[in-house]
Amino acid sequence: MVLADELAKKQRSISVAEFFEKNKQMLGFDSPTRGIITTIKEAIDNSLDACEEAQVLPDILVSVRRISNDVFRVVVEDNGPGIVPEKMPSVFAKLLYGSRFHQVRQTRGQQGIGISAAVLYAQLTTGKPTIVTSRTDAKNKAHTMSLVIKTETNEPEVLSHEEVDWILPHGTRVQLEFKSNIAARKKLIEYLKYTSIVNPHAKFRVEIDDESFTFERVSSEVPPCPVAIKPHPYGIELGVLKRMTAASDLPLKEFLVESFSKVGEKTALEICSSARLDSAVKVSSLGLESLNPLLDAMQTTKIPAPSASQCLSPITDELIVKGMEKEFELDFIKARTRPGSVYGGHSFIVEAAIGYGGKLPPEGSAILLRFANRVPLLYQQGACAITNAVQNVNWKSYGVSQSGLPTGPILILVHVAATNVPFTSESKDAVAAVPEIEREITLALQELGRDLKMFLSRRDRNKLQDDRARAICSVIPLIAAKVGEIVELPVPDTSLIEGRIMRRVVLKKSSAGGKVMIHIDNYTTKSQEISLYDISGDNAGDATVPPSFVSEMDGEYTKIWKVTLSAGEAFEVTYTGSGGGMIEMQGVAENLKVVVDLDV
Amino acid sequence: MVLADELAKKQRSISVAEFFEKNKQMLGFDSPTRGIITTIKEAIDNSLDACEEAQVLPDILVSVRRISNDVFRVVVEDNGPGIVPEKMPSVFAKLLYGSRFHQVRQTRGQQGIGISAAVLYAQLTTGKPTIVTSRTDAKNKAHTMSLVIKTETNEPEVLSHEEVDWILPHGTRVQLEFKSNIAARKKLIEYLKYTSIVNPHAKFRVEIDDESFTFERVSSEVPPCPVAIKPHPYGIELGVLKRMTAASDLPLKEFLVESFSKVGEKTALEICSSARLDSAVKVSSLGLESLNPLLDAMQTTKIPAPSASQCLSPITDELIVKGMEKEFELDFIKARTRPGSVYGGHSFIVEAAIGYGGKLPPEGSAILLRFANRVPLLYQQGACAITNAVQNVNWKSYGVSQSGLPTGPILILVHVAATNVPFTSESKDAVAAVPEIEREITLALQELGRDLKMFLSRRDRNKLQDDRARAICSVIPLIAAKVGEIVELPVPDTSLIEGRIMRRVVLKKSSAGGKVMIHIDNYTTKSQEISLYDISGDNAGDATVPPSFVSEMDGEYTKIWKVTLSAGEAFEVTYTGSGGGMIEMQGVAENLKVVVDLDV
Repeated sequence: MVLADELAKKQRSISVAEFFEKNKQMLGFDSPTRGIITTIKEAIDNSLDACEEAQVLPDILVSVRRISNDVFRVVVEDNGPGIVPEKMPSVFAKLLYGSRFHQVRQTRGQQGIGISAAVLYAQLTTGKPTIVTSRTDAKNKAHTMSLVIKTETNEPEVLSHEEVDWILPHGTRVQLEFKSNIAARKKLIEYLKYTSIVNPHAKFRVEIDDESFTFERVSSEVPPCPVAIKPHPYGIELGVLKRMTAASDLPLKEFLVESFSKVGEKTALEICSSARLDSAVKVSSLGLESLNPLLDAMQTTKIPAPSASQCLSPITDELIVKGMEKEFELDFIKARTRPGSVYGGHSFIVEAAIGYGGKLPPEGSAILLRFANRVPLLYQQGACAITNAVQNVNWKSYGVSQSGLPTGPILILVHVAATNVPFTSESKDAVAAVPEIEREITLALQELGRDLKMFLSRRDRNKLQDDRARAICSVIPLIAAKVGEIVELPVPDTSLIEGRIMRRVVLKKSSAGGKVMIHIDNYTTKSQEISLYDISGDNAGDATVPPSFVSEMDGEYTKIWKVTLSAGEAFEVTYTGSGGGMIEMQGVAENLKVVVDLDV
Repeated sequence: MVLADELAKKQRSISVAEFFEKNKQMLGFDSPTRGIITTIKEAIDNSLDACEEAQVLPDILVSVRRISNDVFRVVVEDNGPGIVPEKMPSVFAKLLYGSRFHQVRQTRGQQGIGISAAVLYAQLTTGKPTIVTSRTDAKNKAHTMSLVIKTETNEPEVLSHEEVDWILPHGTRVQLEFKSNIAARKKLIEYLKYTSIVNPHAKFRVEIDDESFTFERVSSEVPPCPVAIKPHPYGIELGVLKRMTAASDLPLKEFLVESFSKVGEKTALEICSSARLDSAVKVSSLGLESLNPLLDAMQTTKIPAPSASQCLSPITDELIVKGMEKEFELDFIKARTRPGSVYGGHSFIVEAAIGYGGKLPPEGSAILLRFANRVPLLYQQGACAITNAVQNVNWKSYGVSQSGLPTGPILILVHVAATNVPFTSESKDAVAAVPEIEREITLALQELGRDLKMFLSRRDRNKLQDDRARAICSVIPLIAAKVGEIVELPVPDTSLIEGRIMRRVVLKKSSAGGKVMIHIDNYTTKSQEISLYDISGDNAGDATVPPSFVSEMDGEYTKIWKVTLSAGEAFEVTYTGSGGGMIEMQGVAENLKVVVDLDV
């Protein structure tokens, strides 16, 4: 057959840049609009990672400007540690080049693809190079380069390079131009809003055409930079072990201790004996017949899980709750952080939160916010293990209706923090269906579901009680009036009874015979911190409880008592005076307040 | 800042093999079970493509065998054209190497990644090389090689190479071993079933452990091998145009005619004048200031769409309908092929089909079968543009309930055939959200929706008529009896009336005075092919319509008439005899049959 020879002529290598130029959708460049978001996201990922490494509070400028009919210029500038000039070409104009790929720790960038992909997309759509400026030190000048990727070889090409003055002492600025049709304003703001929530220490200044605004930082603490750890024995695969042993000149015991996380001398010896291998044998001499039992031993010996605290940087419950509350003014919000776990040797932690009510849309599917390594995931929701896990929870058993996602005024946030997030593609839109990760998400959501159920049933119970109380209270004054009529006495004051039934804080002031009496009952189920204001001509100099504060103006005395009342507790103060004036409480919710001023 | 220098030390290249070893989920190796399916799929894609190129009827062996507790051996063997020995290492043990990446035509493999990814996965999980045997010609021996990928460099390593005798005159056999837990039997059969439907010319022999079975070919016609075409001017991006012009020594007009599909001299001149460029200018001299207007001109000048028929190979309506009917015995089935279309310069065609009823599950979401370039897509349904398009159709307007997907006994098949299918990732599970493709899918589904609606409303109307008829028929005998009673006559036979009302085929036999009469009325709306059986002591020698067949046994004559009756038509035969015996029809559905034997 001559055909095989003919076919052979067409067989050749494909450069990785050629590959991704043809398959740009895999990098998140499906459409021109999306291209803008992906570019900014990749640049910001790099900026935040670099600032974290330098322990600098990130101050990031994002600018999107239409410079001709269909060409947009995107600039992202940070105050990070900068990049040395020798590395600038490869960092920005070579796919599969970076510092974080080979490290075992949580970072936003991990593939060595992101920003170079944006450079590739820019030159593909406009033919224009990307302009990068970076400065590493106040003592040196900044370097500006104009870069393209040579597609056939995936190598950087420097079109120009000069030293320039720059106002920033250190930092990096990248400027790209590409074709698009709109500035993707809404999606960009959405992306920055969610990025701010999970990076409260970062400040973003945004310029979209002639508009500018700022996402201020709400915390001035740089999160600790995750520390790179060694791989864990449970996550190693045979091929990798084979490569590691071939490259090492250590004896087995030392190799195990040196190369792996959580393996001490004792564990190493245990592994050797379980594999029936001499602990002093040179690992480079081991063949498959020894490596197979060695790997088995490594993965069956009891070894502690990798310490997640070092290499991972979860957002924390507190910051999640703060961020979500600020955004949505929720009636209910709860966050959970699962303990650290492992898949294929990679540490990960799942954090999740559920919010209810507030400003959330009352109908339709829940809002699902997905994050991986502190980066919001904005596309491919349907492809994501997070979505899958949320849909597989039986929400009905938590009192929530469901059609795929739960429905109603519900917000679900899930954050997967991992030393290697298993994304379904280079565009980093969706987490792959790794059973260990799905399981942790499910457990977090189930815990939160139980909390939500309690909230909902308490709310329902409260609502029921409230309805009943309201019904009773509506007839009490009528009964009182009727009774008064029958016994021919003045109608009694029923506010106190109503207050008790309605579970309110009731404030009552009365005066008689030159004595003034102020009484507060806390009929609610919670402790209340109350500021009681009493403004009248009386100075209350002989008050049984002296006021915390008194001031006088034109013969009117403002007296303030700071009172803390547990549920069911009461407060009373009396003083000599003629009463009148006005009375008020602060610190009690309006709908829980009953003020009965019998002294007007 | 020293930090930038420190960070620079960690910055380095990542080999594409290293990248995919760490991100194996992107290649479809999320889990061991899936690994088996992905491997077989990649090998079969190659086999089918190669057989198509050689115009050979594919005869493919797939074998999956557990060879130890957790190690499985997968073999795929084909009768394709084979691979020359010099190319075997790179084809199987180098990622991003292949013959189809740079060609503009429909192929199953297009990335140069698939089978090498499987080799990478095998060596990663078992440390074992992949064994490839290939023969290109009966005159030469076969070559067997044992291959691994050097991960750090993405280069093939040949561990052994020998010439061997082989029973096949030409073909390729690949054998891989990897860790898994189960043989993924069900998913494998599903994959092969759907692959057979869209490749009816292929035969698959399957061996899973000790079980073996065959998917026979149902067509012995090899589909024509799609012909590679030149890129279309509408789909070129500036970066690519820049590269093409830089590498060419042609004048502009000749460059346009030579390099692009559907550009003749006249069109080329039109483009030149619209771009205000000299048609004789050497293209290698053109800078961005000329290339930008040139591209604009290329994309605004009216140029016919690329001819889909050459470079694409749709399944065709006929084969889709055949395949689906065979599998599901549907009540309704319709397929549509949209005209060829273009996205980003890549030709594509959408084919779709809808089936209803039959053996489909009556409740729950519709079954959705997705195909791309004749390959079934089995994973990541939620991430796929096909799913998205199906969900965005308003199925309620076609009389079908919907909750995301349509619900009920519905089957939807969509095939996207393209010179470059925009997959969301290297695992080729899902089509990316390209607006042009989604639009074509939507249009195909809307056309089919209208057909389905007509079927459903006709069916509903029939059902309504049936219900009404049933109601009337249930009282007719009572009325007849009552009338008989009143007029003191025997109760008349009402079956004929009922048959007419109910739209049945009514067969009636009676005899009187030594004459037998058999009468058939086709009251249905369709033509009926009926075999009428009449078994009695009469030989019907003088029948007015001679029987098609007569036989005698122990004095009983079986007479058969083959009768075709259009809707509304009747048949009658009489003969001399005494009647009795039995009578029956075949060829008419049981629920349409009324037999009235008045001659028992």
